[in-house]
Amino acid sequence: MGQGETQWQVVAGGVTAPKGFTAAGISAGLKASGAPDLALIVSENDAIAAAVYTQSHVRAACVDYCQQQLDSQPSARAIFCNSGQANACTGQQGWEDAVTMAEAAAEALNTSAEKVLIASTGVIGQRIKMEPLLAHVPKLVDQLSDHGNNAAAQAIVTTDLVTKTYALETKINGRPVRVGGIAKGSGMIHPNMATMLSFITCDATVAPGLWQTLLARAVDRSFNQITVDGDTSTNDTVIALANGQSKTPAITPGPDADRLEAMLTELCTHLAKSIARDGEGATCLIEVQVSGTTSDQDARQIARTVAGSSLVKSAIFGRDPNWGRIAGAAGRAGVTLDQNQLKIKLGDFVLLKQGQPQAFDHPAAHAYLKQCSDLSSQALKQQDLHSLDQGNDMISTDGFQTIKRQEITAEALAHPVRIEINVGNGAGTGSAWGCDLSYDYVKINAEYTT
Amino acid sequence: MGQGETQWQVVAGGVTAPKGFTAAGISAGLKASGAPDLALIVSENDAIAAAVYTQSHVRAACVDYCQQQLDSQPSARAIFCNSGQANACTGQQGWEDAVTMAEAAAEALNTSAEKVLIASTGVIGQRIKMEPLLAHVPKLVDQLSDHGNNAAAQAIVTTDLVTKTYALETKINGRPVRVGGIAKGSGMIHPNMATMLSFITCDATVAPGLWQTLLARAVDRSFNQITVDGDTSTNDTVIALANGQSKTPAITPGPDADRLEAMLTELCTHLAKSIARDGEGATCLIEVQVSGTTSDQDARQIARTVAGSSLVKSAIFGRDPNWGRIAGAAGRAGVTLDQNQLKIKLGDFVLLKQGQPQAFDHPAAHAYLKQCSDLSSQALKQQDLHSLDQGNDMISTDGFQTIKRQEITAEALAHPVRIEINVGNGAGTGSAWGCDLSYDYVKINAEYTT
Repeated sequence: MGQGETQWQVVAGGVTAPKGFTAAGISAGLKASGAPDLALIVSENDAIAAAVYTQSHVRAACVDYCQQQLDSQPSARAIFCNSGQANACTGQQGWEDAVTMAEAAAEALNTSAEKVLIASTGVIGQRIKMEPLLAHVPKLVDQLSDHGNNAAAQAIVTTDLVTKTYALETKINGRPVRVGGIAKGSGMIHPNMATMLSFITCDATVAPGLWQTLLARAVDRSFNQITVDGDTSTNDTVIALANGQSKTPAITPGPDADRLEAMLTELCTHLAKSIARDGEGATCLIEVQVSGTTSDQDARQIARTVAGSSLVKSAIFGRDPNWGRIAGAAGRAGVTLDQNQLKIKLGDFVLLKQGQPQAFDHPAAHAYLKQCSDLSSQALKQQDLHSLDQGNDMISTDGFQTIKRQEITAEALAHPVRIEINVGNGAGTGSAWGCDLSYDYVKINAEYTT
Repeated sequence: MGQGETQWQVVAGGVTAPKGFTAAGISAGLKASGAPDLALIVSENDAIAAAVYTQSHVRAACVDYCQQQLDSQPSARAIFCNSGQANACTGQQGWEDAVTMAEAAAEALNTSAEKVLIASTGVIGQRIKMEPLLAHVPKLVDQLSDHGNNAAAQAIVTTDLVTKTYALETKINGRPVRVGGIAKGSGMIHPNMATMLSFITCDATVAPGLWQTLLARAVDRSFNQITVDGDTSTNDTVIALANGQSKTPAITPGPDADRLEAMLTELCTHLAKSIARDGEGATCLIEVQVSGTTSDQDARQIARTVAGSSLVKSAIFGRDPNWGRIAGAAGRAGVTLDQNQLKIKLGDFVLLKQGQPQAFDHPAAHAYLKQCSDLSSQALKQQDLHSLDQGNDMISTDGFQTIKRQEITAEALAHPVRIEINVGNGAGTGSAWGCDLSYDYVKINAEYTT
């Protein structure tokens, strides 16, 4: 189901938009800056839980913990996240801290520890500051509310410049069904998960196996198709809870599941694009659309390779319509293709056709690249503090300064640099998203401290 | 055979160090700068020829041409290279230009076209400027000499800051055997070949199949283990000629072949490291040594992933001993490992042991990183123009300005930032080389024109 045919609408509230979910975010002093660092999302009943994890072999304790819990029973009441310390490379002590963290939230929520999923992000190799974390759990639970989405979204970020939150509604069997989500990430973002977290809520009734399938497929087309710098992290996790509060009949494979999957994919794609746009030092969003391959997987692979090419990214930062680098990246993606059928468009400019360069208006193509960046940047500026005016902003409970983070909105994502690549007559299609490579990327990553 | 046990010595002369080879390099006006752009290497007799090519599916005509020739008969007299235009994405016309280029050199050398291998590098999508090229072939042949190595090395470069040339000698059956090589490349450098060319000569007598095997294995451990930016190009080629002029008995598999392979690998590794050190915007060479894997291939894969990580590269540019990024990259390399056995050293500093961070002298580790860069940069400066004082410099034959390129020497490669990673008790080992990611990388690649 393409976006044009969909029957969903954007709604407010992020993870608290679906029925029966509350959220909160506070600062417990885990970050030196005093910025918010604890987030909690709670379903009022046990929800069906699905998750997708980093594919790295160096994994944080929280990833192992979630996998262990969900492998034994795919059900959860809450997601508890800290954004102070990653708790990766912390050995047995790190594992014990993870368990303690889950137990503390469970106790405050009057549930059992196996019903609390946990996530951590921050500096690798540091233990979580357990004392302030544990001391603040009651306060965090106390703040839970159905307008706590933005506070939670703000409390999961690290180097992000903007918060990422989104929610959609459709009708299934005449009843409204909603999905909502928050996400964080701006560097180390690459296919197969990165220092990237996303928490998704849904009020549909779905069987566990089907929910996991829908999530995995949506993630494959969204979060696994973004790239900032090719690095994947130790802590990447997407968790999705479906609590059935919409009171629809149980969704089974068929048209209703397809509709839910399409909406879930759209939600994940919006959040994924938000992360790519917020890539460290980025000045624009890049969208690569590939068609004509044998399979969708081949198309996605080419799209990812082009979106991840440092040379393509540098050229776009330089506003240079450099099709040679696009062709070069497409050629090395590991997908067999006939270079004499290769077609490359940048915006509306045809740069390459049947494998050969075409005459095009170079200054106009340069202007197009500049405009994409300008429009997106303006949209980001205009919405500055907008989210904090909505009454949903995080409340300072600890005397720390309220952090004025922008919320990324659809307008800021509406002007990607669009690269279309056609490689033949196959039916395969796929997209990927990335950002340009700027001086600031180097600056941010050369100066960030371990 | 490890480097410590070898019995070779460094000799002067690059590709003309082995007996029976001459070389030349001139400017034919293919580059707007007027810099040298045509190189020729000739064996006085038909040599056994082996080659390794880019694995990209978008390949320049010259790559197809060489493969076609060598597939039918692995023998050649000459390598003819232009560094003005890549002749990639140029369709049927590009193929015809490639054939014409080979024919022109063959005619001037009194041999047949199938004995001339060709290579091109430069801007993708542009046809070779055939008229000035063809007009300068006689002059190029006229310049051939056994001291033409530096002129040839200078004529194959594009954005390189330094020329890369090296030669080694050993004794086989009591007779001296030499290998020599030149290489170019500074960006788009990544495993499996990139905008990287290397031409290698040897005066041993080797059977074609064995020579191809030795070359492929040497390239796997050297050129395929360097990375600048993860991009692979359309034109990458390594060609190696063995002409038998050393008059040794034919080398067959066994100790003599092992000795030749070790020397060839050392030659390729030196040239590969030279390319990595010359990475666009690089301030230092990074050497990643991995041990304890099940296989050498696994070790090489981890080493490549770490050397290619933008986050690791940025951290080293920032002189930040950021073991978390090294661990993160090792974990996502696609090789199964037990994170609790992971050990990471940076120079002499143990940063991680049994998967957990160790206390180390942070300022001293910072100083180590700075020193590596300083020593290497000083070595480069001291040898500035050195190569041009040796009487081997390119001779201006066309009124163009002599380009004063530095030649990279062993001293500039003697101070890599050394990252050692041990993942367990396996016997596998492998190394990779890269460079740091600086502001200048972005600058060079944002401003380079299509």
